Amino acid sequence: EILGRILAFYEGEANRPLDGRHVIVTSGPTHEPIDPVRYIANRSSGKQGHALAAALARLGARVTLVSGPVTEPDPTGVQTIHVETARDMAQAVEDALPASVAVCAAAVADWRVDGEAGQKIKKDGSGAVPTLSLVENPDILASLSRRNQGRPALVIGFAAETEKVVDHARAKLARKGCDWIVANDVGSGPDGGVMGSTDNTVHIVTGEGIESWPKLSKIEVAARLAARIALTVKERNI
Amino acid sequence: EILGRILAFYEGEANRPLDGRHVIVTSGPTHEPIDPVRYIANRSSGKQGHALAAALARLGARVTLVSGPVTEPDPTGVQTIHVETARDMAQAVEDALPASVAVCAAAVADWRVDGEAGQKIKKDGSGAVPTLSLVENPDILASLSRRNQGRPALVIGFAAETEKVVDHARAKLARKGCDWIVANDVGSGPDGGVMGSTDNTVHIVTGEGIESWPKLSKIEVAARLAARIALTVKERNI
Repeated sequence: EILGRILAFYEGEANRPLDGRHVIVTSGPTHEPIDPVRYIANRSSGKQGHALAAALARLGARVTLVSGPVTEPDPTGVQTIHVETARDMAQAVEDALPASVAVCAAAVADWRVDGEAGQKIKKDGSGAVPTLSLVENPDILASLSRRNQGRPALVIGFAAETEKVVDHARAKLARKGCDWIVANDVGSGPDGGVMGSTDNTVHIVTGEGIESWPKLSKIEVAARLAARIALTVKERNI
Repeated sequence: EILGRILAFYEGEANRPLDGRHVIVTSGPTHEPIDPVRYIANRSSGKQGHALAAALARLGARVTLVSGPVTEPDPTGVQTIHVETARDMAQAVEDALPASVAVCAAAVADWRVDGEAGQKIKKDGSGAVPTLSLVENPDILASLSRRNQGRPALVIGFAAETEKVVDHARAKLARKGCDWIVANDVGSGPDGGVMGSTDNTVHIVTGEGIESWPKLSKIEVAARLAARIALTVKERNI
């Protein structure tokens, strides 16, 4: 008890500006099953979301990280919840509320397969191929942003774009009703550009304007973004 | 030169029965792109194929491992070629020929998306969802098995089945024209059963009959299968 107070004194609000705030971060891809062995995935590695969760925890936040399937280790000092599908992720976020801040960094699948097959779909030898009918997944970012009760005071989305990065991010900000969009250019090359890589070039799109950051490592993006969030929490008295 | 002969003498044919044979092994899943960020995948971890490549190398074979995207490390003493799609894998196998033995342990996607999108497919806000039209991928196992020239003397396929395991394996043996099918029950549970796990229950289906092995670790299945291959190479003078 006394030791705790001493430690709290030395760490101080200056170093732990997010003390007492609960932050939810989503990270990684989602996997949407086609049948028991096949699924639709995307190239998100979770590196950026996981680094951000760790950076927010270092600033004193209590962080709940809701992560899709990734090979990244669980960050230290963060409660990590592992999910597979967009529906699982939406439920885990719902269960983790209330929160002061929510950052949706996961690359949630927009669509899932309508009617997952219970058995492995097999070639029947006729050369006929199945068609996959898709259905829209829950929109976690929009749902959080448009909550009437218990909306986190700061809701941040990510946008991975292959073209017209800032235009698409502005449109996404308006469409989802969130406070910021962190937009990055994932390129359109066969290597998937920034996805899975260690660097990131991001633009922070808010109602007030756009900040374009230089090319940074994902660790540096995470540190800057966590500091930017802490500043806003202080300014807006969240 | 002299040291090499001494080492060869001590290792001897008994320990290295596959000396001088080239074996191609495929392993892991393939990823079939939908657009620059999304793809269709499957739950194969590559554990069984990679373990088999290592076991064959320990018996003296020169092994070319053609691997889809996996987190397994490249096995020691094996030439590993990394590919992503079924078409890439088919080409890499073709390039690796000739071989005495080919083992197709990869979970090659039966279908790919017809007409990969050059840009990320976006929700247009209308609620309309895209439909994915699929087209059949090259059948690596059947192509190897039905080669007129340069067919490996022993062609082995794997079958991951969720039901009627042996029946399906028998049908696959006939349909593909290969020599053996190593069939395993991947289950139909939400955890994907054996895929990604360390254990495996397999049935070796050949023109002569069926051997059902007890539940073994994938390392043990690999060692037994490599020894079984070495025995056949000796018996049939491959």
